[in-house]
Amino acid sequence: MKPPPSHLPFDATFRKTFRDLVLWRRDVRRFRTDPVDEKLLDDLIELATHAPSVGLSQPWRFVKVKSPERRRAVWESFAKANERALGGYEGEQRGNYVSLKLAGLKEAPIHLAVFSDESTHTGSGLGRQTMPETLRYSVVAAVQTMWLGARAEGLGMGWVSILDPAEVTRALDVPDGWRLVAYLDLGWPAEEHIDPELERHHWEERHYTGDLVFTR
Amino acid sequence: MKPPPSHLPFDATFRKTFRDLVLWRRDVRRFRTDPVDEKLLDDLIELATHAPSVGLSQPWRFVKVKSPERRRAVWESFAKANERALGGYEGEQRGNYVSLKLAGLKEAPIHLAVFSDESTHTGSGLGRQTMPETLRYSVVAAVQTMWLGARAEGLGMGWVSILDPAEVTRALDVPDGWRLVAYLDLGWPAEEHIDPELERHHWEERHYTGDLVFTR
Repeated sequence: MKPPPSHLPFDATFRKTFRDLVLWRRDVRRFRTDPVDEKLLDDLIELATHAPSVGLSQPWRFVKVKSPERRRAVWESFAKANERALGGYEGEQRGNYVSLKLAGLKEAPIHLAVFSDESTHTGSGLGRQTMPETLRYSVVAAVQTMWLGARAEGLGMGWVSILDPAEVTRALDVPDGWRLVAYLDLGWPAEEHIDPELERHHWEERHYTGDLVFTR
Repeated sequence: MKPPPSHLPFDATFRKTFRDLVLWRRDVRRFRTDPVDEKLLDDLIELATHAPSVGLSQPWRFVKVKSPERRRAVWESFAKANERALGGYEGEQRGNYVSLKLAGLKEAPIHLAVFSDESTHTGSGLGRQTMPETLRYSVVAAVQTMWLGARAEGLGMGWVSILDPAEVTRALDVPDGWRLVAYLDLGWPAEEHIDPELERHHWEERHYTGDLVFTR
């Protein structure tokens, strides 16, 4: 067994900085257009593969979307879904929705689609007989790990959920049985903020944590 | 706007240590039985609430399961589901499954159930019209954030997915519209490992990252 590194247990300084990492992670939609080194992206994907996965199933599949035609198809799916979503709001809220920037798909140098391979035999089904959704959840854990890793590098990441997952899956021509979990855009952020964009633009406020904790 | 802390951008030493945090996080099933300070748990939950959530919906609801009767009900749900799962394996794999320790529910001082409030109006539905599962995914991002935070404190966490989520939800008597995302046990780990339990006990191996990355 490999011995733990000398900085284990992690010290108070690291823990404080880790907290800042979590607090300064943002869903970035305002990107600079200068390129990101491919090696940095590959390193972040490798880091993400150390996320937990149910039964060690490692169901994450990462698709770098480089073709301009496919990127355009994704952007069009976003634009349509965003237009439809707007129809559900009225008055001041509608005005606020219109003014929000909800994706950085056009500027971001990197588009990364992350799928769950629902057909995988890896892990032999262990742990997912009663809660099969844990396969997708494993992919989400990888995405959040990558998000924090990107932030530590100063790289911004955004998660675009306003799109038709069936349309995007078709546009990316992936194997049957893959399910889209997250469509991400990455790039160097144009701004630094500690407050979420939707809080800063008065769409929503943070809950008080005590209201979210219960005892049984 | 609050200025970034002086250690932003994060330096190479922090990034290296963060990588070790990701690599040394484990799904812990072997706990010591000594208690965990309630304040530490509360701090970890607070940290988790800084995870990303779709439309800033913050759908995470944390239930500390303290009643011995409810804990027993959860353990029984695990035992039943585990017995059923065993029926799906044969021969050597069945022998291996039996020998695996898949939960630490009896020893762990803390049981924490994490739900998604599917009925929440927070966020006004933004971002989840076409992919409503992003509500649950937000809760998973909080769980992974908490997992890393716990590991930084030397605290072990395990995710028990071998149970009937409907049974557990009933046993915990939570509001209608809450959906169980994760049942966690936490405590001080009895062992430290860098390799996943399922890899160490030859259930499954790690994929080579290059096989998981595609270009379109």
